[in-house]
Amino acid sequence: MAYFDAASAAPLHPVARQALQASLDEGWADPARLYREGRRARMLLDAAREAAAEAVGCRPDELVFTSSGTQAVHSGIAGALAGRRRIGSHLIVSTVEHSSVLHAADVHEAGGGAVTQVAVDRAGAVGVRAYADALRPDTALACLQSANHEVGTEQPVAEVAAVCREAGVPLLVDAAQSLGWGRVEGDWSLLAASAHKWGGPAGVGVLVVRKGVRFAAQGPVDERESGRAAGFENIPAIVAAAASLRAVRAEAAVEAVRLRELTDRIRARVPALVPDVEVVGDPARRLPGIVTFSCLYVDGETLLHELDREGFSVSSGSSCTSSTLTPSHVLKAMGVLSEGNVRVSLPAGTPEEDVERFLEVLPGAVAGVREKLGAPVPSAVVREDVLVVDALGKRCPIPVIELAKVIGDVPVGATVRVLSDDEAARLDIPAWCEMRGQEYVGEEPQGRGSAYVVRRVS
Amino acid sequence: MAYFDAASAAPLHPVARQALQASLDEGWADPARLYREGRRARMLLDAAREAAAEAVGCRPDELVFTSSGTQAVHSGIAGALAGRRRIGSHLIVSTVEHSSVLHAADVHEAGGGAVTQVAVDRAGAVGVRAYADALRPDTALACLQSANHEVGTEQPVAEVAAVCREAGVPLLVDAAQSLGWGRVEGDWSLLAASAHKWGGPAGVGVLVVRKGVRFAAQGPVDERESGRAAGFENIPAIVAAAASLRAVRAEAAVEAVRLRELTDRIRARVPALVPDVEVVGDPARRLPGIVTFSCLYVDGETLLHELDREGFSVSSGSSCTSSTLTPSHVLKAMGVLSEGNVRVSLPAGTPEEDVERFLEVLPGAVAGVREKLGAPVPSAVVREDVLVVDALGKRCPIPVIELAKVIGDVPVGATVRVLSDDEAARLDIPAWCEMRGQEYVGEEPQGRGSAYVVRRVS
Repeated sequence: MAYFDAASAAPLHPVARQALQASLDEGWADPARLYREGRRARMLLDAAREAAAEAVGCRPDELVFTSSGTQAVHSGIAGALAGRRRIGSHLIVSTVEHSSVLHAADVHEAGGGAVTQVAVDRAGAVGVRAYADALRPDTALACLQSANHEVGTEQPVAEVAAVCREAGVPLLVDAAQSLGWGRVEGDWSLLAASAHKWGGPAGVGVLVVRKGVRFAAQGPVDERESGRAAGFENIPAIVAAAASLRAVRAEAAVEAVRLRELTDRIRARVPALVPDVEVVGDPARRLPGIVTFSCLYVDGETLLHELDREGFSVSSGSSCTSSTLTPSHVLKAMGVLSEGNVRVSLPAGTPEEDVERFLEVLPGAVAGVREKLGAPVPSAVVREDVLVVDALGKRCPIPVIELAKVIGDVPVGATVRVLSDDEAARLDIPAWCEMRGQEYVGEEPQGRGSAYVVRRVS
Repeated sequence: MAYFDAASAAPLHPVARQALQASLDEGWADPARLYREGRRARMLLDAAREAAAEAVGCRPDELVFTSSGTQAVHSGIAGALAGRRRIGSHLIVSTVEHSSVLHAADVHEAGGGAVTQVAVDRAGAVGVRAYADALRPDTALACLQSANHEVGTEQPVAEVAAVCREAGVPLLVDAAQSLGWGRVEGDWSLLAASAHKWGGPAGVGVLVVRKGVRFAAQGPVDERESGRAAGFENIPAIVAAAASLRAVRAEAAVEAVRLRELTDRIRARVPALVPDVEVVGDPARRLPGIVTFSCLYVDGETLLHELDREGFSVSSGSSCTSSTLTPSHVLKAMGVLSEGNVRVSLPAGTPEEDVERFLEVLPGAVAGVREKLGAPVPSAVVREDVLVVDALGKRCPIPVIELAKVIGDVPVGATVRVLSDDEAARLDIPAWCEMRGQEYVGEEPQGRGSAYVVRRVS
């Protein structure tokens, strides 16, 4: 069995397990109490805070532990926005932030705040210029991830932090995917992270607020964690989080080289092994362990099941695997193919053999799914002078499969209209055109769904 | 060493430890994922939810796990208030709720909501009539603890739930102190609890929202825990919480009898062993393991240190032990003595010998503290026809000590004025009068602090 979904949750690092078990005996009491058990708990908490601060590169009194990375993001954004309420209520985020950031932005907008979403390029990276252009006199806060959780692309955080600093706007960095690999460079103001992403236990997030950053914690607070994270501290888990962060950092330089070689191998060989694949994300400026690709004419959920049966646990940004039927907002923002999407995120220590076996298994798994889906009879009729494919009521990847089947019947220069009410078609038909060198003319709303118009150019 | 502060945090139950360790291997993955590790995590989470729901006496789909009891209270109150926004924004709480409830009420009030605090009697219990009287047509929510965390007094939850139900107002019960002992009876609507209070791990709270209760989760949410608790689930801790709840419940009936006998012993013998002690809280309607008393002329912090040196870990609601210099809001609301306050809360399994040794050690510890504080020269002068004691700048318990020293010099029927700028004096001087059978005349504001006027009647 091979677990290739470290970007969702990394397996518990052995150091985390040891530290957790050891501190269950010493760290269960209330660290606010003055008696022996309380003092011991306080000492463990203080030591964990110092270790985590050292790893982040901040002062211990700038760092609080929250109950999750999501809580750190939510509290950090709410507190930073409230702290600068007098300056304004404009918030900047990128279009490819983690959903926790986008949810916080939605709440801000619903409460009357303004939000600018900065677009990304096809590799998933924001432009520094675009962040600079988004800054306004009433900008209270800007947010940017250190690296993308779905495609691994690293963001130009230090450069964006510099333009924000110049404008006097604090930058909150969501470092959830990268903190285990190293410090976030640059002059950022706030930082959020999540222990279970680096091999620590669930239930621990980190929120750093640099001295001098205006911050007003929102909602009910108490005396815990400098008034920034209410509720009894989970000290055994905090100790385990800090110990494992230190441990993964000690191994990071060597492991980064090793995993990068493995993901490079996947990047290079998947397109050679599997036809009609698009590897997405920046090939160079990326996290060591993540590689993402999309397979045309494949239903992501079925492919994940096939791979699971073969012993591989991966995730997908395809709409087909979620309950919402909306494809990943990241792939959508990048404008890349979302159907048959697979994210491989290797945990530290992944053996080379597992990757080799994955590369052996993948082509058959994709071919199998394509075969299952492969022979729907397209209901194509010629109406006036264009071919119409009626894919209404059919879910991804069927609309694209039907388009591919009829394109050969369309005279060069003529158009085909694909009728579809599947949300993913909006993303996948243009992506197919780009991959196939055909022209995507546009979308025309229909009574039900839309007509996607494609011109055959070759 | 004896740990007598289970009401702050109970030591980890052996079953919790076993379940936590076992589920570290099985429960670390994302339960939202479809692959093997995710499915295993989901199964553990589902089983834990069923076990917890069975213990609470609710449906599994009414119960979500939060990151702490505080989070459960904060989210529960905010969600219930928002769900009934159209009915009104009036909130009812008792004066002796846990600070997490009162903090949520403060935030509600700061946001323009109305809050009624229902008073308690000298035993710390609310009256059902008082809750009924507080209900208004615009009441959105009422909150009541199942039992008080500082003095152990049980509240008439079922009766209050009935009057709320009659008025169509949901009742949120903070069951943090009692859930390990048994289900909360009555027709309540929402319930919050905290695992580390019953011997589960830190980092797990429980929020129950009965079907049919209008509820609108506030702040950014995600797809986790029915949209009521954002952030990656801490499944190993959740499993340990549910398993230990079941385990403590299995032992509850026998252990309740045993601990009640031990706390009865403390209630009966402390006043006989230590002069000038007031045992507070309801003698009968109370939790099995909690007993609280206050010692006149004693500084709570010093007494806690003495007891800690003797190997006893207890807590105190005296102002002297907190950083705020404000005495416990619970003792204040009950109108009982706060100085030299000691809360003994026995964890399950406390050996009888530990309680006996505590009763041996306590008289000497109190006497030692009194001796250290015993000889301040009261700066008493006769002004006009009354005695004035100038205790300005002196902290509790000095103002009461000085009052006690001069009362013998006051003719029966005459008054003494104690000048004090210590917040605790407002509570402790009337309490001393009640204990000593003297008449508390009232408080007169001064330039600095107040004059507390006492008439000698015996």
